Amino acid sequence: HRRGIPEAILAEGKAPEQVTALAETALETTDRALLTRLSDRQLAVLESALADSFPDVTLEHRGDALLVETADRERPSVDATVGIVTAGTVDQTVADEAEIVCLDAGVAIDRVDDIGVAALDRTLDQVDRFRRADVLIVAAGREGALPTVIAGLVDTPVIGVPVSSGYGHGGDGEAALSGMLQSCTVMSVVNVDAGFVAGGQATLIARTIDSARTDPD
Amino acid sequence: HRRGIPEAILAEGKAPEQVTALAETALETTDRALLTRLSDRQLAVLESALADSFPDVTLEHRGDALLVETADRERPSVDATVGIVTAGTVDQTVADEAEIVCLDAGVAIDRVDDIGVAALDRTLDQVDRFRRADVLIVAAGREGALPTVIAGLVDTPVIGVPVSSGYGHGGDGEAALSGMLQSCTVMSVVNVDAGFVAGGQATLIARTIDSARTDPD
Amino acid sequence: HRRGIPEAILAEGKAPEQVTALAETALETTDRALLTRLSDRQLAVLESALADSFPDVTLEHRGDALLVETADRERPSVDATVGIVTAGTVDQTVADEAEIVCLDAGVAIDRVDDIGVAALDRTLDQVDRFRRADVLIVAAGREGALPTVIAGLVDTPVIGVPVSSGYGHGGDGEAALSGMLQSCTVMSVVNVDAGFVAGGQATLIARTIDSARTDPD
Amino acid sequence: HRRGIPEAILAEGKAPEQVTALAETALETTDRALLTRLSDRQLAVLESALADSFPDVTLEHRGDALLVETADRERPSVDATVGIVTAGTVDQTVADEAEIVCLDAGVAIDRVDDIGVAALDRTLDQVDRFRRADVLIVAAGREGALPTVIAGLVDTPVIGVPVSSGYGHGGDGEAALSGMLQSCTVMSVVNVDAGFVAGGQATLIARTIDSARTDPD
Amino acid sequence: HRRGIPEAILAEGKAPEQVTALAETALETTDRALLTRLSDRQLAVLESALADSFPDVTLEHRGDALLVETADRERPSVDATVGIVTAGTVDQTVADEAEIVCLDAGVAIDRVDDIGVAALDRTLDQVDRFRRADVLIVAAGREGALPTVIAGLVDTPVIGVPVSSGYGHGGDGEAALSGMLQSCTVMSVVNVDAGFVAGGQATLIARTIDSARTDPD
Amino acid sequence: HRRGIPEAILAEGKAPEQVTALAETALETTDRALLTRLSDRQLAVLESALADSFPDVTLEHRGDALLVETADRERPSVDATVGIVTAGTVDQTVADEAEIVCLDAGVAIDRVDDIGVAALDRTLDQVDRFRRADVLIVAAGREGALPTVIAGLVDTPVIGVPVSSGYGHGGDGEAALSGMLQSCTVMSVVNVDAGFVAGGQATLIARTIDSARTDPD
Amino acid sequence: HRRGIPEAILAEGKAPEQVTALAETALETTDRALLTRLSDRQLAVLESALADSFPDVTLEHRGDALLVETADRERPSVDATVGIVTAGTVDQTVADEAEIVCLDAGVAIDRVDDIGVAALDRTLDQVDRFRRADVLIVAAGREGALPTVIAGLVDTPVIGVPVSSGYGHGGDGEAALSGMLQSCTVMSVVNVDAGFVAGGQATLIARTIDSARTDPD
Amino acid sequence: HRRGIPEAILAEGKAPEQVTALAETALETTDRALLTRLSDRQLAVLESALADSFPDVTLEHRGDALLVETADRERPSVDATVGIVTAGTVDQTVADEAEIVCLDAGVAIDRVDDIGVAALDRTLDQVDRFRRADVLIVAAGREGALPTVIAGLVDTPVIGVPVSSGYGHGGDGEAALSGMLQSCTVMSVVNVDAGFVAGGQATLIARTIDSARTDPD
Ligand SMILES: Nc1ncnc2c1ncn2[C@@H]1O[C@H](COP(=O)(O)O)[C@@H](O)[C@H]1O
Ligand SMILES: Nc1ncnc2c1ncn2[C@@H]1O[C@H](COP(=O)(O)O)[C@@H](O)[C@H]1O
Ligand SMILES: Nc1ncnc2c1ncn2[C@@H]1O[C@H](COP(=O)(O)O)[C@@H](O)[C@H]1O
Ligand SMILES: Nc1ncnc2c1ncn2[C@@H]1O[C@H](COP(=O)(O)O)[C@@H](O)[C@H]1O
Ligand SMILES: [Mg+2]
Ligand SMILES: [Mg+2]
Ligand SMILES: [Mg+2]
Ligand SMILES: [Mg+2]
Ligand SMILES: [Mg+2]
Ligand SMILES: [Mg+2]
Ligand SMILES: [Mg+2]
Ligand SMILES: [Mg+2]
Repeated sequence: HRRGIPEAILAEGKAPEQVTALAETALETTDRALLTRLSDRQLAVLESALADSFPDVTLEHRGDALLVETADRERPSVDATVGIVTAGTVDQTVADEAEIVCLDAGVAIDRVDDIGVAALDRTLDQVDRFRRADVLIVAAGREGALPTVIAGLVDTPVIGVPVSSGYGHGGDGEAALSGMLQSCTVMSVVNVDAGFVAGGQATLIARTIDSARTDPD
Repeated sequence: HRRGIPEAILAEGKAPEQVTALAETALETTDRALLTRLSDRQLAVLESALADSFPDVTLEHRGDALLVETADRERPSVDATVGIVTAGTVDQTVADEAEIVCLDAGVAIDRVDDIGVAALDRTLDQVDRFRRADVLIVAAGREGALPTVIAGLVDTPVIGVPVSSGYGHGGDGEAALSGMLQSCTVMSVVNVDAGFVAGGQATLIARTIDSARTDPD
Repeated sequence: HRRGIPEAILAEGKAPEQVTALAETALETTDRALLTRLSDRQLAVLESALADSFPDVTLEHRGDALLVETADRERPSVDATVGIVTAGTVDQTVADEAEIVCLDAGVAIDRVDDIGVAALDRTLDQVDRFRRADVLIVAAGREGALPTVIAGLVDTPVIGVPVSSGYGHGGDGEAALSGMLQSCTVMSVVNVDAGFVAGGQATLIARTIDSARTDPD
Repeated sequence: HRRGIPEAILAEGKAPEQVTALAETALETTDRALLTRLSDRQLAVLESALADSFPDVTLEHRGDALLVETADRERPSVDATVGIVTAGTVDQTVADEAEIVCLDAGVAIDRVDDIGVAALDRTLDQVDRFRRADVLIVAAGREGALPTVIAGLVDTPVIGVPVSSGYGHGGDGEAALSGMLQSCTVMSVVNVDAGFVAGGQATLIARTIDSARTDPD
Repeated sequence: HRRGIPEAILAEGKAPEQVTALAETALETTDRALLTRLSDRQLAVLESALADSFPDVTLEHRGDALLVETADRERPSVDATVGIVTAGTVDQTVADEAEIVCLDAGVAIDRVDDIGVAALDRTLDQVDRFRRADVLIVAAGREGALPTVIAGLVDTPVIGVPVSSGYGHGGDGEAALSGMLQSCTVMSVVNVDAGFVAGGQATLIARTIDSARTDPD
Repeated sequence: HRRGIPEAILAEGKAPEQVTALAETALETTDRALLTRLSDRQLAVLESALADSFPDVTLEHRGDALLVETADRERPSVDATVGIVTAGTVDQTVADEAEIVCLDAGVAIDRVDDIGVAALDRTLDQVDRFRRADVLIVAAGREGALPTVIAGLVDTPVIGVPVSSGYGHGGDGEAALSGMLQSCTVMSVVNVDAGFVAGGQATLIARTIDSARTDPD
Repeated sequence: HRRGIPEAILAEGKAPEQVTALAETALETTDRALLTRLSDRQLAVLESALADSFPDVTLEHRGDALLVETADRERPSVDATVGIVTAGTVDQTVADEAEIVCLDAGVAIDRVDDIGVAALDRTLDQVDRFRRADVLIVAAGREGALPTVIAGLVDTPVIGVPVSSGYGHGGDGEAALSGMLQSCTVMSVVNVDAGFVAGGQATLIARTIDSARTDPD
Repeated sequence: HRRGIPEAILAEGKAPEQVTALAETALETTDRALLTRLSDRQLAVLESALADSFPDVTLEHRGDALLVETADRERPSVDATVGIVTAGTVDQTVADEAEIVCLDAGVAIDRVDDIGVAALDRTLDQVDRFRRADVLIVAAGREGALPTVIAGLVDTPVIGVPVSSGYGHGGDGEAALSGMLQSCTVMSVVNVDAGFVAGGQATLIARTIDSARTDPD
């Protein structure tokens, strides 16, 4: 494939040694390894193993996600920008998962945190920045109103990511998911906490735009 | 009771003659009748019956709700204002139910329609009006983000009313209800389409404020 | 706005006269009217009214959706292609809603019907066509596996639209929706039967691509 | 703002050091810190840190919630009373969250515990006390009937708080929530265990009443 | 069997002729026919057929339920009383279904209607009557709190029947059902609207009590 | 009260010391203490405390439930038998909770374990025993068919207790609960795992029968 | 294909003319047409059309399903027997759908109706017949216990079909479906009311058995 | 019985000593023991106990399942093949449970792992192998599309096993279950993670085929 979504290793529920082995195989075969939902212990085991097996790799951390690249790797460069926006602190780990997918794919990223519906002026202040992105990922938990508000302010395509915060009825991201699906402004949605999928979808769009820029006929 | 929520006749599912009989009894005993969820046919039968039995009554229509008052009735006057706000057209019938309860109770009403999250400036334009109310009822369907947005802009207590619009997952008002319960701004909520309950709760609050104004010690 | 999603009139639940009035206003102010979920009766009333009020309009039908345009209207032309794919017959009405939004926006459309997971070779035969589109809308009911299968075959971004077919557990499109959200291939999703939203989102992406082609720097 | 709901720190899911840092910042900037859902360990770390950094603060504990105030702080005084009522022992922690919000805001509090539907006379004995409050918060788990019963006995506005007790079908507060939403007496509701929101909403109402008392014209 | 729950004909969803045929067979073989959920049309067809085929039968109506008995039938007599209690008007049809089962079985019935949690004194006034029954059936819709309140006041065993009234979240009797299952007082429950089952279970208990009275050793 | 359901101490979620204190108070005031859902640790702490404070008490264990009685206590004697039946091993703990309530109340108990729908002859072998009971409690998990089968074989009133066994869809007792509510034979039901409630309801029925036997007029 | 599940026309939701056209095409191309969920009106239109277009066809009715075969058709003959069992009357239409699929495929059918858990001896009487079948389809609504009971009595593989009877919680076949999925005896399941799928799956198994009989090596 | 599904010991939730005792009893009475959902600790305790009590047994491990057989055991031999297919790694443990049931029953097994909808060619490559099996078990998590795809390619009867992988909406296997129930190709289904049931059902079918081969008349 010319493009393709890079394979990632979902560390959750795997033994640290298993995670390490999968990462080393990925490095051998593709010069990079992308890992998500790493625990502290999995990370420690991986880092110490890599110190031996792949001493020259570079590590980029985004929340619980990690991109490992060998010196040989030539990261692609995609001429398109994905805006990544979060409401609360708890949304950041999910957005980090989206970010690391874009990073690995060489897509330009414009990250804006701490924009909330409860403090609307912070959102209004960033509208121009949102407009400059080619596609926006907006992660929000609780009632998940932020992507609806932003999609009403800009023409940039918005991908909403519901986040599993909040307790009680509609908790675990269900209120945010159904709110985004019911949104009175146009957007598309991925599953609760599916930052990885949002990053992948944004990357596919970014590459299409990059192709259009590169080869506009 | 000095105050009390007036009894209303829920017309839905009743025969027109039954509705008429209940309304006539209410007029005889309390000089007024409040009816909700009236169909066109129930209304026609009621009006033609009243032309005979209570020829001098006054009728106030709000959507599918109706307030009938005899000439004798002295409507109370409550010194407090309830703001009633709606997003889409479909929310208005629900808001009408809240409005007629306030009307019957003699509470001052400030009604603002057609304020939506998809066109945020219309909401921002009305903030001063929202602030002048003593309590706000905000009805919204689909993702139900409007009460969250408004409650983030003002200190007036907000009662959110989810409306059963929208199709697909989270339709029938479930997305709006869970979104309001999960709201990241402070508000309280009533059930889906429960304009009657919102109007009743706002009336109870308005009367407490009226007492405080009248008898401030 | 330079771009913007055109307003549409959701006919469902409105009186034919109300639908007609809204359409006429749209024609006066924007030279076009986009209507979705029109019943036969609403359509008949509208057509007969337009014969008087707007005798020169052009009508384009897609399932239950309708685009009306005055002779003055200059439909925009967007240099990008949206592929629209359906599995069963019942999915076509939902896809039609997406198609008419793209049509109104001047986006190129490549429509492929009757591609199903139960007859996989028909899907495999069309892979090149799917690859040539800039973005794909795939509508599917029952278990909703088609967008998953297609997204696994191509790098074009896929927007899945669950359709409310199927009876029993997971009916009303709920199985299709949750399957698309859980998909093991990358895609984004809109609500059940939300062809309108899928068409809108695809249009926003198509315009971004058009801008990149037109003004590639 | 003249009024405003004070910001609180939701300790749940944060590291003790993070909680401490947030509390210290709040003390520096607003002379007070309000913390909810504190674990024993978070509390111990916080207290020992404050012994150094803010040795002169006063601490008020309500269940898992804590109000810290510097000597400089002039707590506001709001001339209105919030009644806070609980059914079982397990409801008290949720009510404590409501209470500490009122305490921080300077609202008068009348707390009544251990009133249950299974022992109705205890409830009937307190009716006069419920009537003297300006607004009532009633927290109840299991079937959550207490706010319904109380709202039927008094004209004071009632805010129901469902509590996540009970096992089996309708457990986790879902039975209590849906029962309060369906209540045949007028009340409004907050989410399951959302004592904080109930306290905030009651505070907003109390301030409106206080304004009416202070400035009755 | 000495006891046995009589077979009943569930008319709902059957053709009037089918209902009539089933009733005639029951009359021939058991000298009685018990029918539930009869529509007006089914009833009319049945009555006119019976005028020919079984001219001497006696008919007892309870809401949508009907007991037909031939002159030959010797209705049993059970020395035990079932109290049947309802909250709102809409609960009466469900209670009628329970009542007709008891009637057919010859169990003594004490029916109390229009007892509601919103007007608690009417309930408190009837406590002695509730205590005199051997078993109580309590039907209630909306939040379904009435059986909980009554079971807290008496030691008579209570069978709660949730009724499918109420709109919005927890409507269709789901709030009432989960509330009764979560009740903080002891009771057992039947399904939503299952008056027939409640009547059957109360009859089985009444017969056990009758046996104990008749043959106390 | 002449009868009354004895209060029980729900140990789950309480500190061992709190459980002990509640038990000691119960012993002082009522000469007995009934405890449910005791952990091993709670039990150990309780037993060692009682060795000091109440050295002469008698302890009866049933699964995780415990009845403690002082030498002074005169356990009542109720002339009626409750049959308690279980399907799988996992149902026994729930049935034990029912059993200890009956034990405390002095009701005669006939316990039958290990009767399952998958081995129907074991059930058929016990039918006479089921018939001799005055009331039956039948606890069953998974699909919960056992009470349906038994209630079809006998005229004894059956109280079904769904048990939270089983994994996957309908697990946590939800399949068993809805199956019992939908049962095509007459029975009443309590919540999932609510052995305590079933024991209480059976006790209330047993006492009514005891009264009828003792005082049959 | 040597075997293959025959295509069927799902009439529900199609215009009578559309159904007729699809049936005629099927007759032309495959000498047979299988139709399910036919309304009376669809059937009348089809029959009158076929009188003209295909005057020599044979029609076999099973409930709402219909098999039309031309004189040319040589129905296959499969040497294996599918037992089809129903509990209540309402289950028969669903079983008919399964039966007509087997009929069309030439599989031998042994149909047993009116076997219910509430009258267990009727089931026990048929055990030998169930054992003689090669595969059993058991359709049951309400609590759906019948396939569990039968699968416990025989070694024949059982396919359970939940039927959408029953009202209240677990109605619409949901209790039956989850009960069959949780069954403590081994069976597999199809969706609610999916008689067509059960018939197809039984046919596939029957053909495998037929092959084994015909060509046993 | 000639055939019968062997009893298995579900280790989950049992003490290691209890598991060991049950296994030893099974070995004594049936010369074999089948255990599922064994933890590492349960396995260690069991193995060390067996070293003493049954030193000559043979152990076969499949994931968390274990088959223990004495030297005396003559494993049956069934002349039929069950294909067992998995999509992701996480599906393998569930498939192992199905495999060990077939193994114990002496059914031939053809296991194919790592076949996924996201990499369709691996599935297409195995179609001939799928066709050679007499019955197929296909385990898949997330959206669970694999059995649908395979059942569309072959005439072998397919039993779908939803696996509880995936997070967010439709997680815990619910999306896979409802997708398989809604599948547009014919298959039957067992509950989420119910590898044991799938293995049992496939074994029952395999034995019927074996009988047909052995005794074809
Ligand atoms: N739209 C409404 N929503 C909720 N409750 C209502 C509504 N209209 C009337 N009610 C209340 O419902 C009850 C009406 O009962 P009834 O008219 O006897 O069926 C009264 O307590 C009314 O105050
Ligand atoms: N089929 C549809 N699905 C979702 N939204 C729609 C659809 N058709 C129109 N809309 C949007 O729904 C709103 C229509 O609202 P109204 O016509 O005022 O009830 C507008 O924002 C439309 O753009
Ligand atoms: N296992 C149980 N299930 C349901 N209710 C229980 C159980 N054990 C005790 N109870 C009741 O629950 C309440 C115990 O509350 P407390 O011990 O104060 O938390 C009392 O009313 C007990 O009678
Ligand atoms: N009652 C039924 N339940 C499920 N699927 C059916 C039923 N009847 C027909 N089908 C299948 O559903 C599809 C019918 O599609 P169509 O007639 O094109 O809408 C075909 O694959 C039929 O084999
Ligand atoms: Mg936008
Ligand atoms: Mg606010
Ligand atoms: Mg792809
Ligand atoms: Mg009140
Ligand atoms: Mg009681
Ligand atoms: Mg019985
Ligand atoms: Mg069997
Ligand atoms: Mg197939």
